[in-house]
Amino acid sequence: MIKCAIIGATGFTGMELIKILVRHPGVRITHLTTRQDTPIPVRNLIPVLPPGIDLEIVPYSFTDVKKNADVVFVCLPHTEAAETVKEFRRANKIVIDLSADFRLKGLKEYERWYKVEHPCPELVKEAVYGLPELYREKIKQADLIANPGCYPTGVILALAPLLKNKLIERDSMIVDAASGVSGAGKKLDPATQFIELEENYLAYKVNKHQHMPEMREVLETYSGAGISLTFVPHLLPVKRGILATIYLQRRKNVSARKIEAALKAAYDKEPFVRLRPEGNFPALRDVQGTNYCDIGFTTDPQSDRVILVTAIDNLLKGASGQAVQNMNIRMEFAEDEGLKLW
Amino acid sequence: MIKCAIIGATGFTGMELIKILVRHPGVRITHLTTRQDTPIPVRNLIPVLPPGIDLEIVPYSFTDVKKNADVVFVCLPHTEAAETVKEFRRANKIVIDLSADFRLKGLKEYERWYKVEHPCPELVKEAVYGLPELYREKIKQADLIANPGCYPTGVILALAPLLKNKLIERDSMIVDAASGVSGAGKKLDPATQFIELEENYLAYKVNKHQHMPEMREVLETYSGAGISLTFVPHLLPVKRGILATIYLQRRKNVSARKIEAALKAAYDKEPFVRLRPEGNFPALRDVQGTNYCDIGFTTDPQSDRVILVTAIDNLLKGASGQAVQNMNIRMEFAEDEGLKLW
Amino acid sequence: MIKCAIIGATGFTGMELIKILVRHPGVRITHLTTRQDTPIPVRNLIPVLPPGIDLEIVPYSFTDVKKNADVVFVCLPHTEAAETVKEFRRANKIVIDLSADFRLKGLKEYERWYKVEHPCPELVKEAVYGLPELYREKIKQADLIANPGCYPTGVILALAPLLKNKLIERDSMIVDAASGVSGAGKKLDPATQFIELEENYLAYKVNKHQHMPEMREVLETYSGAGISLTFVPHLLPVKRGILATIYLQRRKNVSARKIEAALKAAYDKEPFVRLRPEGNFPALRDVQGTNYCDIGFTTDPQSDRVILVTAIDNLLKGASGQAVQNMNIRMEFAEDEGLKLW
Amino acid sequence: MIKCAIIGATGFTGMELIKILVRHPGVRITHLTTRQDTPIPVRNLIPVLPPGIDLEIVPYSFTDVKKNADVVFVCLPHTEAAETVKEFRRANKIVIDLSADFRLKGLKEYERWYKVEHPCPELVKEAVYGLPELYREKIKQADLIANPGCYPTGVILALAPLLKNKLIERDSMIVDAASGVSGAGKKLDPATQFIELEENYLAYKVNKHQHMPEMREVLETYSGAGISLTFVPHLLPVKRGILATIYLQRRKNVSARKIEAALKAAYDKEPFVRLRPEGNFPALRDVQGTNYCDIGFTTDPQSDRVILVTAIDNLLKGASGQAVQNMNIRMEFAEDEGLKLW
Repeated sequence: MIKCAIIGATGFTGMELIKILVRHPGVRITHLTTRQDTPIPVRNLIPVLPPGIDLEIVPYSFTDVKKNADVVFVCLPHTEAAETVKEFRRANKIVIDLSADFRLKGLKEYERWYKVEHPCPELVKEAVYGLPELYREKIKQADLIANPGCYPTGVILALAPLLKNKLIERDSMIVDAASGVSGAGKKLDPATQFIELEENYLAYKVNKHQHMPEMREVLETYSGAGISLTFVPHLLPVKRGILATIYLQRRKNVSARKIEAALKAAYDKEPFVRLRPEGNFPALRDVQGTNYCDIGFTTDPQSDRVILVTAIDNLLKGASGQAVQNMNIRMEFAEDEGLKLW
Repeated sequence: MIKCAIIGATGFTGMELIKILVRHPGVRITHLTTRQDTPIPVRNLIPVLPPGIDLEIVPYSFTDVKKNADVVFVCLPHTEAAETVKEFRRANKIVIDLSADFRLKGLKEYERWYKVEHPCPELVKEAVYGLPELYREKIKQADLIANPGCYPTGVILALAPLLKNKLIERDSMIVDAASGVSGAGKKLDPATQFIELEENYLAYKVNKHQHMPEMREVLETYSGAGISLTFVPHLLPVKRGILATIYLQRRKNVSARKIEAALKAAYDKEPFVRLRPEGNFPALRDVQGTNYCDIGFTTDPQSDRVILVTAIDNLLKGASGQAVQNMNIRMEFAEDEGLKLW
Repeated sequence: MIKCAIIGATGFTGMELIKILVRHPGVRITHLTTRQDTPIPVRNLIPVLPPGIDLEIVPYSFTDVKKNADVVFVCLPHTEAAETVKEFRRANKIVIDLSADFRLKGLKEYERWYKVEHPCPELVKEAVYGLPELYREKIKQADLIANPGCYPTGVILALAPLLKNKLIERDSMIVDAASGVSGAGKKLDPATQFIELEENYLAYKVNKHQHMPEMREVLETYSGAGISLTFVPHLLPVKRGILATIYLQRRKNVSARKIEAALKAAYDKEPFVRLRPEGNFPALRDVQGTNYCDIGFTTDPQSDRVILVTAIDNLLKGASGQAVQNMNIRMEFAEDEGLKLW
Repeated sequence: MIKCAIIGATGFTGMELIKILVRHPGVRITHLTTRQDTPIPVRNLIPVLPPGIDLEIVPYSFTDVKKNADVVFVCLPHTEAAETVKEFRRANKIVIDLSADFRLKGLKEYERWYKVEHPCPELVKEAVYGLPELYREKIKQADLIANPGCYPTGVILALAPLLKNKLIERDSMIVDAASGVSGAGKKLDPATQFIELEENYLAYKVNKHQHMPEMREVLETYSGAGISLTFVPHLLPVKRGILATIYLQRRKNVSARKIEAALKAAYDKEPFVRLRPEGNFPALRDVQGTNYCDIGFTTDPQSDRVILVTAIDNLLKGASGQAVQNMNIRMEFAEDEGLKLW
């Protein structure tokens, strides 16, 4: 039995991890921690859990967690997570960090977007980007896994095979994405009150979202050169899920068949990527509550454009589901253990 | 007092017209008709209306309507509207057609998208496209006004000034739009049931929507040459409103200031277009229940792209509000008479 | 032109008042105030308003408001409103208070439910309960109008005629009510976040809601003796509207006809109460966006029970609409001036 | 491995059964049938299911199903189910019927409410009412299990212990319930369109719902005499879940402690009933996606009333979850096998 700790267990990603891990047959949750002062019974926070589950979320103590955890999931806010990650890496724990703190290799980009100097640059090199479909072999060896952001997960999965196979123009990437409100986290905010969001829809952080450098950095390893990326996220009046519609210019003589072949070659054997036949597109509800990334595509001969639609559950494949997928790979469980969700 | 008839008054656009016209000080509703067999009291259909309003929607009779109407609003489905429009034009009535039947000048395009030969091509030439901000002078004289489609309204208003001033590349237009469910009309459909749509979001008719030729035809009069347009509409779990995010390539040396200047020149004096300062974007709720089209924009120096966001209420500026605006222009009322909605 | 001030204009009831009063032909808004430090353009707060409306909400200054207002709407939280009301009454202004501070005649009940001693008991006697259908004559003379609570409005309108005519048992009143989230006010609260409320429904303050003494006090003036009232409010995943389902024991030999007759006698000429025929019940959407209170009823011969359903828009008939209705009565406007809303 | 068939697998209860049974370790689904003409891959209907699941829903053939099924779940509409149940009982299959056809022992009540003569009265006697918490011993032996209705499940569980222990007045039962829209089934209906239901709330079938005789018949076995029951269901703008608020008159000298003791005695060891401490009430979201029935209560000393709130997921504890719970009991699986849902 692997012993797991969740640091920052009261947020949405922490709660989702709890829901998955209490049912994972190879795992025992040994610690759930919070920055608050008083313990919180897990069942108060997640009332759908069965009465038998008597776990408590307790005030954080590094010493306590250290004693009895093999894997530590860090679910703290960006820029706060790094210090905690460092502590646990020093104590030689396997860390899966759900924050953005170790996703970017470029320290300057990190500073630019998160407005702080990186607190432990030495660990950045060690960190492996936890997108299993692209980095599975590295994840198997990694002791620090930087779990991808929600928007980047779907977008990178759709684009990497096309860039790698040189099917699309590097300077043509436009991503129009829409996310459910859980992506904004649990913090109280007028914009995520029911009265503000119900019946509403809006673009936000237009071409200024902090997930842009993450997408760019990973995608450039596939394009082999600089890419131009336009990214406009939107806020949906739904709880969970991200649907991204991606517009690309295809390179000369690239047929729909080639696009499909590249995607198939990349994902045909992947347990959590489901490719649609050309012209068939996923809806949010096809992936909500699951760890799947669904991808559909079509081509427009008139404009030489390729249109892709990808859908994920932002809290699962876009966060906690993917974190467990990473843990499964690292700890040699079946990759879908605990993730047969529907 | 102008006498108005609404043909097809039980659909969403008909209902919305009723709500506006019962309060319009210069208008009397003389006929509300339906293809159904039995009369329907308006207040059963629209329970928020006050008890004093005793109008009935009655089975359609051309002869009855003809006797006592100056302006006829036709709210019938595409391909069914044309014959009715023809009848009323022969009887010399002023017709405002909310269907798609007289929007396209190109008869072949009409046939291609609506799968029928146009039933009265001779009237197509007479019809004036009812987008007041662009065709006000023609509307003043028109006896047949083709009220624009919901998606085209917001998109054309955003793009026409930029094309006209040659600020953007003709082959670079990508429109990602999201509509509330009233855009689909009142017909029962599994896709618009609550259980299917709540918490859902999806792309539909990807690059195949029947509003594409309408946008293209109008925009090409501004570009002076062929344009390339990619259009992906999405269905939102909201009742009303369309938000379109538009991605364009700007031409060489075109600054944000020039974009702003072109939009300002076009709309500064318009009562129903509200321009935002650069980097400020409208949300759906800013326009719901109003006849406004709100437009925001920004530029991305890195990719030389322009991003525009436009928002309208699809049933008002995208349909019935615009129809009344057209009537006001044609009948020489103040243009915002009956349209001070919020 | 009557000069109106709104104290506390940034909350939901203040905003709703603004939307009504800017269109009211007999009124000019002279002051909109907030407890915040910096002025807020009204159109930032209510983006649907037309560009022409340049009102600002400014930091509160008694002296400023006093100089130039005939009617003062006080939209402050309970227990904070009373002092402000007192100031304006001393300055001889007509005050319409939307808080709970002057609704209860019983000072002990006030203390018991609001946990503070009443700050100006001398004004309590002067205050008239602003339910026009029951207290119109007094409202005409009143200088301090205590605008009713949202739940009490619908419930009292349904029950008063039945109690007055001795048709129902005084000890049998059960009110099961469900409210949209705007009833909770604008304060940030985890319970009213989208993620918490969407797809949810719950009972709250079960038989402990602060509107209970208000209902009881008014209803006892009609029963002439103590009543027993059970009241369970529920929170709905909707923005606005209250629907209350009321269960009563009828007195011996009371037929459905008698119930109907009593309701008809009370409301047949009322502009804002709409009675349904027996067995026909209002839905929330029938009244949303209007100042109506819709009432339906039926009887159950087997159990001798009467079931009533009443629906209002909590921000209109349940707050700001009713406040304007009161102002119209007091200032001798037509009672529905500014309130033809739909 | 138990072989299971689902007759009528395309409806909401059929789909929910599929989702549970594909994960049930003791069960193999051998047949999924529909009244439609063409086969439907299960994954088209339920896209969240994993790619490995290749089940098809095929046109119904009694002969085929008969050959290879131990347990037959009948998910057909009321009055259509009975004939199919009869066929399978004749073929000696264990039948779990999710329709209303075998819930009522009183044939006259059946006729009165369902407007048809019962097609196989001889089987009515054999049928066991499938509410495990009350009828577990009988269910163990039953070959025809009449799975309870959604509203009756929560209401009967709350009331049976109180009636049995003579704590409440038999003539005082008022049930105010609110259901998500899935309770209405999959049939297209204007009332369940998104545009009609979003932001709406309404009472329907006021004191005329067909679940009333089912509640009354079961509850009278506990009261030992006639009861008076008032029942008003409401439609919520949510997908799933039922919350019922129940108002009762307690008998003389019945304390809150006695109420609590009776409920505890009944449910303390039940895996799927969760009792709250006095004054603590469940919300819909506490049970959505689970097989739990949560019950909260309080007493009102002033009026001698007891208030109960019960919450279930109408498709799980109110239908398919309970059906599997019944199968588990009958086939000697652990009672919660396949039902650890959250």
